[in-house]
Amino acid sequence: MFLKIGVIGTGAIGQDHIRRITNNLTGAKIVAVTDVNAEQAKAIVQKENLDAKVYENGHDVINATEVDAVIVTSWGPTHEEFVLASIAAGKPVFCEKPLATTAEGCKKIVDAEIAYGKPLVQVGFMRRYDKGYRALKKVVDHDKIGEPLMVHCAHRAPSAPGFSGDMALTDSFVHEIDVLRWLLNDEYVSAQVILPRNTRLVDKALQDPHIVLLETKQGIRIDTEIFVNCQYGYDIQCQIVGETGIANLPEPSSVVLRSEAKLSTDILVDWKDRFIDSYDVELQEWINSTLKGEMNGPSAWDGYVVAVTADACVEAKHTGQIVPISIPECPSFYKKDFTLV
Amino acid sequence: MFLKIGVIGTGAIGQDHIRRITNNLTGAKIVAVTDVNAEQAKAIVQKENLDAKVYENGHDVINATEVDAVIVTSWGPTHEEFVLASIAAGKPVFCEKPLATTAEGCKKIVDAEIAYGKPLVQVGFMRRYDKGYRALKKVVDHDKIGEPLMVHCAHRAPSAPGFSGDMALTDSFVHEIDVLRWLLNDEYVSAQVILPRNTRLVDKALQDPHIVLLETKQGIRIDTEIFVNCQYGYDIQCQIVGETGIANLPEPSSVVLRSEAKLSTDILVDWKDRFIDSYDVELQEWINSTLKGEMNGPSAWDGYVVAVTADACVEAKHTGQIVPISIPECPSFYKKDFTLV
Amino acid sequence: MFLKIGVIGTGAIGQDHIRRITNNLTGAKIVAVTDVNAEQAKAIVQKENLDAKVYENGHDVINATEVDAVIVTSWGPTHEEFVLASIAAGKPVFCEKPLATTAEGCKKIVDAEIAYGKPLVQVGFMRRYDKGYRALKKVVDHDKIGEPLMVHCAHRAPSAPGFSGDMALTDSFVHEIDVLRWLLNDEYVSAQVILPRNTRLVDKALQDPHIVLLETKQGIRIDTEIFVNCQYGYDIQCQIVGETGIANLPEPSSVVLRSEAKLSTDILVDWKDRFIDSYDVELQEWINSTLKGEMNGPSAWDGYVVAVTADACVEAKHTGQIVPISIPECPSFYKKDFTLV
Amino acid sequence: MFLKIGVIGTGAIGQDHIRRITNNLTGAKIVAVTDVNAEQAKAIVQKENLDAKVYENGHDVINATEVDAVIVTSWGPTHEEFVLASIAAGKPVFCEKPLATTAEGCKKIVDAEIAYGKPLVQVGFMRRYDKGYRALKKVVDHDKIGEPLMVHCAHRAPSAPGFSGDMALTDSFVHEIDVLRWLLNDEYVSAQVILPRNTRLVDKALQDPHIVLLETKQGIRIDTEIFVNCQYGYDIQCQIVGETGIANLPEPSSVVLRSEAKLSTDILVDWKDRFIDSYDVELQEWINSTLKGEMNGPSAWDGYVVAVTADACVEAKHTGQIVPISIPECPSFYKKDFTLV
Repeated sequence: MFLKIGVIGTGAIGQDHIRRITNNLTGAKIVAVTDVNAEQAKAIVQKENLDAKVYENGHDVINATEVDAVIVTSWGPTHEEFVLASIAAGKPVFCEKPLATTAEGCKKIVDAEIAYGKPLVQVGFMRRYDKGYRALKKVVDHDKIGEPLMVHCAHRAPSAPGFSGDMALTDSFVHEIDVLRWLLNDEYVSAQVILPRNTRLVDKALQDPHIVLLETKQGIRIDTEIFVNCQYGYDIQCQIVGETGIANLPEPSSVVLRSEAKLSTDILVDWKDRFIDSYDVELQEWINSTLKGEMNGPSAWDGYVVAVTADACVEAKHTGQIVPISIPECPSFYKKDFTLV
Repeated sequence: MFLKIGVIGTGAIGQDHIRRITNNLTGAKIVAVTDVNAEQAKAIVQKENLDAKVYENGHDVINATEVDAVIVTSWGPTHEEFVLASIAAGKPVFCEKPLATTAEGCKKIVDAEIAYGKPLVQVGFMRRYDKGYRALKKVVDHDKIGEPLMVHCAHRAPSAPGFSGDMALTDSFVHEIDVLRWLLNDEYVSAQVILPRNTRLVDKALQDPHIVLLETKQGIRIDTEIFVNCQYGYDIQCQIVGETGIANLPEPSSVVLRSEAKLSTDILVDWKDRFIDSYDVELQEWINSTLKGEMNGPSAWDGYVVAVTADACVEAKHTGQIVPISIPECPSFYKKDFTLV
Repeated sequence: MFLKIGVIGTGAIGQDHIRRITNNLTGAKIVAVTDVNAEQAKAIVQKENLDAKVYENGHDVINATEVDAVIVTSWGPTHEEFVLASIAAGKPVFCEKPLATTAEGCKKIVDAEIAYGKPLVQVGFMRRYDKGYRALKKVVDHDKIGEPLMVHCAHRAPSAPGFSGDMALTDSFVHEIDVLRWLLNDEYVSAQVILPRNTRLVDKALQDPHIVLLETKQGIRIDTEIFVNCQYGYDIQCQIVGETGIANLPEPSSVVLRSEAKLSTDILVDWKDRFIDSYDVELQEWINSTLKGEMNGPSAWDGYVVAVTADACVEAKHTGQIVPISIPECPSFYKKDFTLV
Repeated sequence: MFLKIGVIGTGAIGQDHIRRITNNLTGAKIVAVTDVNAEQAKAIVQKENLDAKVYENGHDVINATEVDAVIVTSWGPTHEEFVLASIAAGKPVFCEKPLATTAEGCKKIVDAEIAYGKPLVQVGFMRRYDKGYRALKKVVDHDKIGEPLMVHCAHRAPSAPGFSGDMALTDSFVHEIDVLRWLLNDEYVSAQVILPRNTRLVDKALQDPHIVLLETKQGIRIDTEIFVNCQYGYDIQCQIVGETGIANLPEPSSVVLRSEAKLSTDILVDWKDRFIDSYDVELQEWINSTLKGEMNGPSAWDGYVVAVTADACVEAKHTGQIVPISIPECPSFYKKDFTLV
């Protein structure tokens, strides 16, 4: 049995997903594609030798009878529209982040999904599928370090071409927002943003780095350094301090080299290499669940909570204040305990 | 297009391969199975809900018209017979180690394959598919440490239930024999085996540990500790000493824990966890190659060379001598340069 | 030539200093001691076989003609009095922290020393003498990581018997205050204290852990976790994030152990082991400088700045506010550039 | 009380010892020096402002009435003569390696010392005083890894200017010979030397690297790579494989750097930096013992055993054979159990 997938948006990430579903994963095939650039959509069909129809637009893909499920990898501002349309069509939809560009947009999707009565939406927060984060969560959930009290994180990239304004928060930090509440099985109550001395290696208009401080319901305090022009590499750090011990996210595996008076391992430079395996696991699990009529990944509700939290961080950055985060009670429709057993 | 596979032998490793081909890999399906224990064969068909026929014996699997390619995971002493039959039937065959229980048996397979005129046989040396070994090989091949001069290895297991006689050499060390000549793109010329003081934690009849010393054509010297009752974990080490630097096989990725006055990472205990990803890559690449009519993995010749080398090691162990290894010139049929580009 | 030293206070740290000066260091000898517990003073003279006179009180030690220089290791509240008396006597004085229990007390010492016209006072901030901190400072000063932008620190102890109130700030964190401004060659402008969820492994009356956020004149942001009941060990971490790279304080050297499925190094549990070598270096350098009529270590001014900063932290803790730190311009008498050449 | 020391030979190592005794250590002073280059001897006296007499030759130093104890740091071939003369004069003597250039020479010293009736001689094997080796020995002696079965070592230097012939064995490997028998509390019974492919980065006349295999009485097998032109750094490795676990010599402490896509620590390049602290400990302990009339360090017997073992290694290198090592029963005069308590 195959899950027949329609893909809306064949840019870089869309093509990557098409390739992995076609060549690496099992149980699914791409049967429909579309892109604002129709030539690009045709090119990938040809290049990957897909048995897939190229449609005029996303709505045609969603409504195509041969399409069982939808992947939305189009330009961010169009996500909301296509996700809502997928729900309207009663079709499972995997949407890359952001679920919508505003918290209100996310809320509309949540409401539509609840109204439809069955979970259909998964958001592309791939870190939950990373072997390292899963191992870290297991350590926490299996009580190897006692109750978590603090989390120290860093999100570093060598450079961030095209970044402007608050993108360090709205594009990079959102991954931390999602994965940390999943790791801790907790929710945020306030945010504060600290602006350190800027690196001189970026245009003065861009603040870099940031430090974001989050507080959770249980009182856990999280500090995250976001430094997207750190030069040296793409480096994701997460350290959970518990009552009796401390656990760190694994470093990516690397040859250990002794050379030129240094004992060294490699640090990645391309973000795509860091979570490449996670994307495979994420989509394979989505395919498997969808074939079984289930929906287990990051939900529309998760996408909404991330959006509300990111908004608070942006406000905290601009006001310098500690901004309260008020997330409504999670509807029973979405209730989920992230604890690993 | 699907590769239709017949599996001969549905013990532990046979079942694992059936499961991964069915659930994790793409491009193949199991259409035929057999086992000396017919009930076991039937059970796996049912459990994995396979659309596969259960045959009386391996020859029937090989000759079944729906079978495109064969996987041999039966009892070691039967491998030679089924591989030869697959060649006779002109069908690609993936055979778990050993290719045959004797060097002569391997040689027969080599001769049969050359006579047939097209490569059909791949041997299950999965380490070549391990991400870590591949990264290590890249470091060597890309000249990051100069010409290799020495290799220090260790092959350690917590315990070895069922091991007797020379199995540390014939069952464990064979993996080192294969992967090191592939890593170094070199061939062996002599072997010596050193018998250290025995661990008291095994039956006195079993020698454990061993140290095997190999010399290559280029004069590279390899020392490998094989310690299959080391208690503490399953630990594979490989350090290549070059003219200008040294490279170590990556340690498996692990959470870093601070607890009880120790800063620690986990060491695996189950050998299956160590190379679990390699098995997936190995079989996926075999499926892909076979579908394209190619054969790229460890060949029958490689299986033969490993058998000849293992024989020399066993002789070296029992005589205490430095035993020369004479491997005939590699037939042009098999010529292959392992250097990564 | 010998520096003849009088020691005021023969408790644990006083005895340690007497022992190291007598047995490990060169160029000095203990010629006078005193303690509120006269028996204890006599006991150490006897035990270490010192050629030293036991005096009634600290003032007698300071004024003894055979005493060239004074070490103050008495109860904290008495430090100010004995340091002032040493200045009045024109004798070099090494005072364990705190220099005085209040910023005002420290200021009085600063004023007295300036009035005297020659530096006489050194404060016992031993971290500046730690090999690891010095190596870290060299990396920063030699521009291996670009300009520092952020510093992430942790100060962890397994337990803190006897701790109450704000001692985590006034007793533990003061070391960070001193060493970080020395490392960065910078001064503080504000402090904020965050109170995470408390560990349940201490009496509810005690807040533990704390996170202290400091801002420097240059805009560098420092976050320090202080967790004095972390159970697992005594663990001092310091990571400096620069524009092009990141440097971490070295971990103490340890045997690497493979045992029971763990690859581990030891974490210290006793704080005395962590900086034991630093105490030797600190006192040897003090002896050497003093013999040359110089004063190079942490000065009375440094002690004063630490006291002002610690006061701000305590206020920040109790108010929850970001508290400005206003440190007067450093008198030219004390001007010092900490940059290593 | 001071140990008044006469130094024979004021080359590099002699000057180092004079400096450390004068400036870093306690309990001793240099009162007499000599060197074949009298100007050099005078220069160091002046430079270090020593209250020491410059003598014509070593014998005058030994016989000077103000000299309590002798340090021999002259040219290797003169050691035997000066050590024998020191024994004849009944004065404690610390002799840098080699004790004598031949095993026979060492034996003569052993015989003379026994005839004298009191231990007077210590040999400069400083590794036993290294904090790392002592920590490693504690792990072994306290049974953290079970009984040792194998030891894997490496002795690497970036380059070896001036090395020729068998100096890798007679100058470098002798340190391993001494420290391993001390670590294991065991004695050698055979040696084998393997000559790997030579690095092209040295003159063809020089073999580099070597692998030396030693067997002990208890059956422990030791393999040591000696690679004195390894380019990348000065790197001493020692891994002891026990029945239940494995312990590695600590790496020297280093800042951890993230820079240019590498996570790295420094490897030393100068051998002097590696054991610089050990020399201080070694001489301080020698001074302390000598003042007490004891002799606890590496003895003349140890120097003799090292010489016999090194001879066997040289023979093994030239013959390619496994060479038996027969060390006579240790005289009760020297009996010592190296086990740490």
